[in-house]
Amino acid sequence: MTQLEEARRGRITPLVKKLAKDEGVSARVLSKRLKDGTAVIPLNASRAGIRKPCAIGKGLRTKVNANIGTSTDAAGIKKEVEKLRVALACGADTVMDLSVGGSLQKVRAAIIASSPVPVGTVPVYEIAVRAESLKGDFLKFDEKLAFDVLEDQAREGVDFFTIHAGVTKKSTLALHKHKRLMGIVSRGGAMMAAWMRRTGKENPFYAHFDKVAEICARYDVALSLGDGLRPGSILDATDAAQLSELIILGELAKKARAKGVQVMIEGPGHVPLDQIEQNILLQKKYCNGAPFYVLGPLVTDVAAGYDHISGAIGGALAASFGADFLCYVTPAEHLRHPSASDVKEGVIASRIAAHAADIVKKIPSALAWDRKLSLARAKRDWKKQICLSIDPVKARLYRQSSTPKLSDVCTMCGKYCSLKLSGKV
Amino acid sequence: MTQLEEARRGRITPLVKKLAKDEGVSARVLSKRLKDGTAVIPLNASRAGIRKPCAIGKGLRTKVNANIGTSTDAAGIKKEVEKLRVALACGADTVMDLSVGGSLQKVRAAIIASSPVPVGTVPVYEIAVRAESLKGDFLKFDEKLAFDVLEDQAREGVDFFTIHAGVTKKSTLALHKHKRLMGIVSRGGAMMAAWMRRTGKENPFYAHFDKVAEICARYDVALSLGDGLRPGSILDATDAAQLSELIILGELAKKARAKGVQVMIEGPGHVPLDQIEQNILLQKKYCNGAPFYVLGPLVTDVAAGYDHISGAIGGALAASFGADFLCYVTPAEHLRHPSASDVKEGVIASRIAAHAADIVKKIPSALAWDRKLSLARAKRDWKKQICLSIDPVKARLYRQSSTPKLSDVCTMCGKYCSLKLSGKV
Repeated sequence: MTQLEEARRGRITPLVKKLAKDEGVSARVLSKRLKDGTAVIPLNASRAGIRKPCAIGKGLRTKVNANIGTSTDAAGIKKEVEKLRVALACGADTVMDLSVGGSLQKVRAAIIASSPVPVGTVPVYEIAVRAESLKGDFLKFDEKLAFDVLEDQAREGVDFFTIHAGVTKKSTLALHKHKRLMGIVSRGGAMMAAWMRRTGKENPFYAHFDKVAEICARYDVALSLGDGLRPGSILDATDAAQLSELIILGELAKKARAKGVQVMIEGPGHVPLDQIEQNILLQKKYCNGAPFYVLGPLVTDVAAGYDHISGAIGGALAASFGADFLCYVTPAEHLRHPSASDVKEGVIASRIAAHAADIVKKIPSALAWDRKLSLARAKRDWKKQICLSIDPVKARLYRQSSTPKLSDVCTMCGKYCSLKLSGKV
Repeated sequence: MTQLEEARRGRITPLVKKLAKDEGVSARVLSKRLKDGTAVIPLNASRAGIRKPCAIGKGLRTKVNANIGTSTDAAGIKKEVEKLRVALACGADTVMDLSVGGSLQKVRAAIIASSPVPVGTVPVYEIAVRAESLKGDFLKFDEKLAFDVLEDQAREGVDFFTIHAGVTKKSTLALHKHKRLMGIVSRGGAMMAAWMRRTGKENPFYAHFDKVAEICARYDVALSLGDGLRPGSILDATDAAQLSELIILGELAKKARAKGVQVMIEGPGHVPLDQIEQNILLQKKYCNGAPFYVLGPLVTDVAAGYDHISGAIGGALAASFGADFLCYVTPAEHLRHPSASDVKEGVIASRIAAHAADIVKKIPSALAWDRKLSLARAKRDWKKQICLSIDPVKARLYRQSSTPKLSDVCTMCGKYCSLKLSGKV
């Protein structure tokens, strides 16, 4: 039985109890949210024992995902396991293995074996890579190969799948009727659209969505319905193609839940600040409150090298309006395959965004953290202040790199420290 | 005659014409905004010839300020001039010299001489430092010393003054009646409050505000009315002390304008995401639409080491709601005197925030920039894409550090590049 089915039968599992406790909500409330689909616990049945599973959704702490995985240009397994370690050390709640280089099965096995947090994948990447290896052309795959990959990855323990089932004949029509600047910027979405164009067939994950759901149900893999038509420029945001796909994703979410499969919905992308709220409202409306997993969003197209900051701005706003799960963006976005240091920058920036939103969401642990840190700061208790910072290692390095003459202040204000003066007022 | 007086007489100066052209607004509109106080051009009469003056306010591109200046622990002039150079290279629109270490007059002279952009100061710092040097106690200053410093700095060419005239007997009362977590976190605000407490006198800049305005009018120094009681923790945001001061600042702004002095209002500080909009609305209401100059705001207290990101989140939102001028925050905030590299990180983060807001403000040049970059990206024109990035140096370094096998893609997706695939769909 899947976790969704358990919740439907009113069974509150030990995991639900544990995660509810971590979140500061009652187990009954969490179980109810799993049942109505406003929260999910992405966890493959075979990985029930992992150390750090998490629940994602309504009323819960905003979670952060870090994308790792090989590329065609950099296919080392060790480097990806190192990135996993860095992402975990920085506080990522989940990781996705987006590998497209080397032996995908081996990288995935290494990541799954080393990961105490849920691991997601985008199976169409392996479908393409297998087609390339079998037929010399990554678009030469058929439905059988596609479902074989899903089944294999589910069996290996993947906790959630990004499936681009919303890139359909209908939704891609909108791309042609309403011109956009950037076309399709989702790698998986572009693969599906290219395959459909070449074969003239409907997207197999849409045409045979029941089969997708059956595989997911069998292993209790959560579905993350990908937004293959997300905007890749703020000038394309919230356009007809994006919304056509969103409506389809809402319909598919309903079907998947009927089969006992937990569902999240993926969201954009590149979105100007003033369109973020409506993007969240539309997703919640069309997808019956399913957890919303956003990539960024980036609030400008010009921040290459600093897209973690652009993404943190958009992510904070999105989560404050109700997005539940932030996919990090690293400084390497649009430029290169990310390094371990990019992974670190990305996770921390997204965690700042998630936390800023959790303050607005009134997550009790969020405000308590700021209160504790500010109390330590007011007392100029440097040790405590640093320990409570989002990245104590960096905060400590900064302080150590610049020792003040007076030990109770910092080198910015020295003896003119406002907090010291304020204490005297 | 000050620029405000010129505008009142309907004289459109060559500078107004030039700045209006740069901003893509008509000179008449800019002149009208100077007249009604919704825009300012901070520019000392003696610096009329500088290369990069700017206008700040309604309907104009959001500007970014970088704070530089010595500390008691690091008082080298060369380092501060180097920070000025870095801030300018990264696109800062103004700088503030916040020096409190070494010879303040010498640092200021060096910065003013080297700066093609407007230079601001916080005169109370020099008042304190002179008192320390003359009497061995930085709070042992009198009204005469205070006004001497203002006069000296205005004569030397400072373009705008932060004056903490709103820290008054009345506004500080609210601090005692309504407890806050962090007390006074503004260095200048804390100095004024400590002086008032010790002498039992009213804030001289409030008590003799006409004299402040007269000096500013004589040299055409713009006033930036400081928020000495800004919140230093998100738990203190929008509290009674902050609002009491804001109301006073609105009254003082009116008085200053009556004397022909241009005025901006400074704003917080530490503000949760969901209180940013009301902070902007309150400032615009109480201060008759005067340009709003915000420090951050930081949307969480826990991001020490990454406060440039926390500040970019808050700044983007603040500016999108109508803040006109962002004071950068560097990664060093709360930890140390910033280095040149901190200055760079701070300016770029604030520029991303300002630009994201300018897209919302419908500043024509803003959207045009994203469009150009996205067109280059869609064509995989790497050279152009990199040149158009907010920091071409970093973008180029990133791309060069990770050379793809295929020259028209990047190492993230390699041959699976979505844009390449999308071109075929």
